[in-house]
Amino acid sequence: MAGRKISPNLALDQYIAERQQQGESIVHLGFGEARLPVFGPLAQRLAAGAGRNTYGPVAGAADVREAVAGYFTRRRLPTEADQIIVAPGSKPLLMAIQLAVPGDLLLHSPAWNTYAPQAELAGKRVVRLPVPEECGGVPDPAALRDGVRAARAEGGDPRIVVLTLPDNPTGTLAPPEVIREICAVAEEEDLLIVSDEIYRDLLHDPALPFLSPAEVVPERTVVITGLSKSLALGGWRIGVARFPAGDRGTELRDDVASLASEIWSTLAGPMQEVAAYAFSEPPELLDRLAADARLHGAVAAAVHRILVATGARCRPPTAGFYLYPDFEPLRGALAPLGVQDSHTLQDHLLRERGVAVLAGHHLGDDEKALRFRIATSMMYGAAEAERARSVAAALAGEDPLTLPHIASVLATVERAFTGLLADAG
Amino acid sequence: MAGRKISPNLALDQYIAERQQQGESIVHLGFGEARLPVFGPLAQRLAAGAGRNTYGPVAGAADVREAVAGYFTRRRLPTEADQIIVAPGSKPLLMAIQLAVPGDLLLHSPAWNTYAPQAELAGKRVVRLPVPEECGGVPDPAALRDGVRAARAEGGDPRIVVLTLPDNPTGTLAPPEVIREICAVAEEEDLLIVSDEIYRDLLHDPALPFLSPAEVVPERTVVITGLSKSLALGGWRIGVARFPAGDRGTELRDDVASLASEIWSTLAGPMQEVAAYAFSEPPELLDRLAADARLHGAVAAAVHRILVATGARCRPPTAGFYLYPDFEPLRGALAPLGVQDSHTLQDHLLRERGVAVLAGHHLGDDEKALRFRIATSMMYGAAEAERARSVAAALAGEDPLTLPHIASVLATVERAFTGLLADAG
Repeated sequence: MAGRKISPNLALDQYIAERQQQGESIVHLGFGEARLPVFGPLAQRLAAGAGRNTYGPVAGAADVREAVAGYFTRRRLPTEADQIIVAPGSKPLLMAIQLAVPGDLLLHSPAWNTYAPQAELAGKRVVRLPVPEECGGVPDPAALRDGVRAARAEGGDPRIVVLTLPDNPTGTLAPPEVIREICAVAEEEDLLIVSDEIYRDLLHDPALPFLSPAEVVPERTVVITGLSKSLALGGWRIGVARFPAGDRGTELRDDVASLASEIWSTLAGPMQEVAAYAFSEPPELLDRLAADARLHGAVAAAVHRILVATGARCRPPTAGFYLYPDFEPLRGALAPLGVQDSHTLQDHLLRERGVAVLAGHHLGDDEKALRFRIATSMMYGAAEAERARSVAAALAGEDPLTLPHIASVLATVERAFTGLLADAG
Repeated sequence: MAGRKISPNLALDQYIAERQQQGESIVHLGFGEARLPVFGPLAQRLAAGAGRNTYGPVAGAADVREAVAGYFTRRRLPTEADQIIVAPGSKPLLMAIQLAVPGDLLLHSPAWNTYAPQAELAGKRVVRLPVPEECGGVPDPAALRDGVRAARAEGGDPRIVVLTLPDNPTGTLAPPEVIREICAVAEEEDLLIVSDEIYRDLLHDPALPFLSPAEVVPERTVVITGLSKSLALGGWRIGVARFPAGDRGTELRDDVASLASEIWSTLAGPMQEVAAYAFSEPPELLDRLAADARLHGAVAAAVHRILVATGARCRPPTAGFYLYPDFEPLRGALAPLGVQDSHTLQDHLLRERGVAVLAGHHLGDDEKALRFRIATSMMYGAAEAERARSVAAALAGEDPLTLPHIASVLATVERAFTGLLADAG
């Protein structure tokens, strides 16, 4: 097992933090973290939960599971508390599901960098499938059908398809008609859908139609969510799984609870207190969430304009805080700089332009392509006070782009990409 | 994967909680939880850590790893911060180590009920070995040598031996001479030792000699600990691994960090704040810890007296809050009650005598034996105020056995076992 590596996004984050501590000026856009202050009442709930120092039920206490059931029920997914398991992040839940469900994994490219390594840990093969032109986060439905059949013809056993709705890394949301097509394939081919909806509450326009596969094929969809992205609580590690009602769902839930009991026991009690509050969605929390979503939308749109002006192709972001540009139109111009693939493009941006991004090959994309992920959530301020100011502006309905610290980092990013093009001649 | 079960101790805990809620009177001695109030300053650190909402390094922030390194260094184990990984409990660390290290697992019987299922999840075979007469938590050294050679002769590949120092379930500590013998076998047979020292700070007599295998064979010992038992923080999920210095240790640490990055990311930031405080061991915390250890010792000794008076064999407890009696001397007397193995003994005690214990077969012991684990830590009070009073008495140097609520539950337990014997005629 020698030579295992830290998950590339976490490794890049550690590397950049070390270089910044050494005084280097790097604009860190390589890590998918909503770097925003903790909403005050969440910190109060954390403190109030200190007395929850006993283990309690593996799946989570009744109050937190009921709150989470309410959260889903308000999203057109009627849910009982018994369908819910909470955990220290969504990662261990995704891992346990891959351990519990036999067969191979169908995975779109690019995709968040943890699905595939978890599949390998669970002894699964990973069948990579292209995303549609219009959005990321899902396999192209026709490619999904073909991929399942081709894998089976070769002796494979694809049984799970992961969807990321909305998507990391593309910052887009698959539209309802694409979801319906994928659900139809899942029915035809008897696939379990794992719908990772951890960015669901960060749609830039709340009117954007969101369809969960759990609304279409409820008996074959597990929904994953958590508070890391929507409430900027990545470091608090709070994740949730919603299992289907009925025998098949109950059996899977029991299997995952069993694995949970051996691998991590349960979500920390004080974090259960936090989750019980957050998933009950009181108005003050929803106000903050809406403000954060507006902030993400405004900054992601501004960076999108910079990238497109540079000459890159890039899907317009509609949710979360990511962009996934493609510099293929600039391949000829970039070649004299030694940039010929995603490795050299990431390196060049980091060393020559002081901008850290995550190269597409870390996300399962073709390393020959000139694609990478930008996390725009890292632009809300280097100092805590700036980040608080960013949120306050969004809450007050001000345009966050007018804040000096955000305008400044946007200008730096713009200069970096303009400079890239100038160097490229 | 149908038919997975929840880890039996957690399952029993849930079952008892449900029956108690329905009004049944059950003395719950089946779950290994230090059911004591949270020490005030720990709750303050939790609240103070709310701002740690970013992911940070997988292994833990520098401050917490330095505090943990200091903790080990004060225990004759010189340690650098880089040798430490913190995690949401010791379970995920034990799981990751089993995934990272190839080969099979050598495991004493009885042993804590999670080592073996984790080995199976990691695709390992489990070679079960008897414990010595005098103590649990370790294989008999001669049986270890023979077991390794027999397993290899049969095509197995035993590579890891787990020790539990002090032990759950027997409440005993393997003496230094036994540890040295085991370390010699580990050297001869090239085994990695995983030394689970999560009960180390709960020696009933602090003068009892404790030898960690990491003092004897440092390059081949990983030490595991956490705050669940010593500080009654099971529900907060804080665990630690200390890896050997040097190339081999560094490689294993890197492998475990890689697995951590894919399975759970990191320990929650507020819990890292708690751990940084706790592992720095300020005097007020050590006072509380010493008081808790005295409380555990006094109550475990009282229950030991009851069991021995009943006619059971039982090693005297010297650490933690467990007893592991053997009712073999009463087999003839118990047979008319339908008690003939550990299943029926556990059932009879629960249904007829209102006492919940964990049968030995759940801990890998022979199901034909009449052995079970008692967790005496469940006797400190049904109400929060009673538990606080138990700790206050121990801090004040009072005899906890004179507290009415503890005297009362001890009398109940005594009646249960006296009654068992009377029924048995």
